[in-house]
Amino acid sequence: MARRNVFYAQSGGVTAVINASACGVIETARRHRDRIGKVYAGRNGILGALHEDMIDTSRETVRAIAALRHTPGGAFGSARYKLKPIEESRAEYERLIEVFDAHNIGYFFYNGGGDSMDTAHKVAQLGRELGYPITCIGVPKTVDNDLPVTDCCPGFGSVAKYVAVSTREAALDVASMARTSTRVFILEVMGRHAGWIAAAAGLAGQGADEPPHLILFPEIPFDRKGFLRRVQQCVERNEYCVIVVSEGARDADGHFLADAGTRDAFGHKQLGGVAQEIATMVRDELGLKYHYAIADYLQRSARHIASAVDVEQAYAVGRAAVELALAGQNAIMPCIVRKSDRPYRWVIGQVPLSRVANREKKMPRRFITRDGYGITAAARRYLEPLIQGEDYPPYRAGLPDYVHLRNHPVTKKLA
Amino acid sequence: MARRNVFYAQSGGVTAVINASACGVIETARRHRDRIGKVYAGRNGILGALHEDMIDTSRETVRAIAALRHTPGGAFGSARYKLKPIEESRAEYERLIEVFDAHNIGYFFYNGGGDSMDTAHKVAQLGRELGYPITCIGVPKTVDNDLPVTDCCPGFGSVAKYVAVSTREAALDVASMARTSTRVFILEVMGRHAGWIAAAAGLAGQGADEPPHLILFPEIPFDRKGFLRRVQQCVERNEYCVIVVSEGARDADGHFLADAGTRDAFGHKQLGGVAQEIATMVRDELGLKYHYAIADYLQRSARHIASAVDVEQAYAVGRAAVELALAGQNAIMPCIVRKSDRPYRWVIGQVPLSRVANREKKMPRRFITRDGYGITAAARRYLEPLIQGEDYPPYRAGLPDYVHLRNHPVTKKLA
Repeated sequence: MARRNVFYAQSGGVTAVINASACGVIETARRHRDRIGKVYAGRNGILGALHEDMIDTSRETVRAIAALRHTPGGAFGSARYKLKPIEESRAEYERLIEVFDAHNIGYFFYNGGGDSMDTAHKVAQLGRELGYPITCIGVPKTVDNDLPVTDCCPGFGSVAKYVAVSTREAALDVASMARTSTRVFILEVMGRHAGWIAAAAGLAGQGADEPPHLILFPEIPFDRKGFLRRVQQCVERNEYCVIVVSEGARDADGHFLADAGTRDAFGHKQLGGVAQEIATMVRDELGLKYHYAIADYLQRSARHIASAVDVEQAYAVGRAAVELALAGQNAIMPCIVRKSDRPYRWVIGQVPLSRVANREKKMPRRFITRDGYGITAAARRYLEPLIQGEDYPPYRAGLPDYVHLRNHPVTKKLA
Repeated sequence: MARRNVFYAQSGGVTAVINASACGVIETARRHRDRIGKVYAGRNGILGALHEDMIDTSRETVRAIAALRHTPGGAFGSARYKLKPIEESRAEYERLIEVFDAHNIGYFFYNGGGDSMDTAHKVAQLGRELGYPITCIGVPKTVDNDLPVTDCCPGFGSVAKYVAVSTREAALDVASMARTSTRVFILEVMGRHAGWIAAAAGLAGQGADEPPHLILFPEIPFDRKGFLRRVQQCVERNEYCVIVVSEGARDADGHFLADAGTRDAFGHKQLGGVAQEIATMVRDELGLKYHYAIADYLQRSARHIASAVDVEQAYAVGRAAVELALAGQNAIMPCIVRKSDRPYRWVIGQVPLSRVANREKKMPRRFITRDGYGITAAARRYLEPLIQGEDYPPYRAGLPDYVHLRNHPVTKKLA
């Protein structure tokens, strides 16, 4: 069988562990030199293929590739760029195939969320249609944990650990000071349509009197009056109140509590500022002193406090992508299959891309307490295993020693 | 010599390592049972003395006290409460002495910043005046690093490490996505009057083209036009721009860029929202997509990424407070004396409270680059040693295992 090259690209928002998946892909490909030539990475994701702007990862040392496992961000650049339906932009898909053909690319590994799985799926279809042999494998990644079928998404466990740790720590601070200073602390976390990340903050404490006292989920329409009453009661009972709010929190009409009005390249609304909304409400209606934190990119890049389970899974789906491709699979995504909660056991499974493309997994209602402000025992059973273990990066001069690849370009062959 | 008890209190904003100082005080006091009776801690700081609401730390196990070393927040509660000048509120000072007398307290260890050193100093003076023998020792603590004389303040090194790590991580995220998403990322950090914390973020990179690209210090009047030009240039050159802004950033007239208008118990303005100010400016004037994070309490409670040097120094000043008191010193504060930068060597010194009370140490101008947006080699030489080493807390079930003390009350003796 002729050796063919790999095209690997990162897509959408990056995570603390997406490079661990890249590491899994590249290291595994390097172990199969009989069948796989070089691994080319798209500079800035799929744009790298469209512009024939690729990076030759074979120019990187074994040590540099190994260091991807502990380096956050997207080492080759990612992109928020969604290919339109084939009927609208057939030229773009054909361009991909043209570039792949020019560089003898037989494997397309696309590391991203639901939109990217859709693209990988379409490239597989078009390859078949055009008679160009291309193996397309999706590599799951999203901090939002909203891909279907897979038990969890690499990237989520680490952001979950970050928000749970940060909530526990900030709550200790607020509790110490409540008598004479801040009474209400609000932490804004990511999660546009699903409350998975906000739910993870719930792991910081047990029961209604341990922080976080209130979680505002996108799944539960915001009830201003009920919420303010709960804050008041919480402060009376505990002296302080810690609130975790999802950026996707919305009112009964489905409007985001904070809507900056701008949209990203995928057409999603750019959110931000819900913490301030809540804070202002608390001050104006209850007269309580507040502070708020907005974790923003800190939460999804915090490799320094990554979940060891998450790192391992991110690497495993990268490795599995290559192994499944070599086993003759196509148009599939390796996924995480949970075998048991306690002790936590998981294996890698696989799912057709058609089943994951453009589908969003919401958090089950049974994960949220009846009152809508906390997480249930079922949620804890699901979430707890995902934040287990610390996988600290190496440090140099007091700071994490993250790798910067050389990112040597592949010589262009097309006009 | 008769055994006398200790009164220990935490004051002002807590830190990731103030409990390490408490640990130093209590463990050292326990080693001198011949001369020190019990260590009583003020519940909610000095309020605990005023209300005769004290905690008997002798009821805590050796293990629990040892765990204070790795637990953030203020284990006994802190307070933003400043005693007025003696002439205005002599009754309060006399009440302190009355409570101390009732509980045979011969040592007052006050763990805080400049305001607290002033209080400790006044109690020492009043004790002398009233003929009540009380040894008053200040234990330095402040994330702001603005106490004079001491080379650095316990609490600062850990927040410095947190912001440097977070800046490095978030910058990797932004760099990956810049082509199609966020161009400008802003991290808002603490530091009301001095830019020490903002400066620490500068350790994340070297030179003008490594993030953070721009730092906005309280010490440098904000120049809107010049700043926007720099952002534009940075994005043209690097595709993205990472900005770290101090909450205390202000314009040429001395007005804070973001002024929430409210004041805390010390009469300081409550700040917040400068990141959003800058972000809006960048969007409106340059049309660039932005994101911003506000670290707020996360930065000063992040024990999970504490500086090992900071933890050690926090413990050392607590231990030294007891040892200096037993050596007959009074009205002093143990401080950090730097012996050399590289290798970093330090010892504990001491300074009269009168020399530290109510004085603020600003960052020297020579620590800020000529253009006002970065840190100099001198700043690096000063800052780098303070973030060295990782002192990870123990974990349980994926989360830091922080101690919750029993906080058993001391029986009241007064009306």
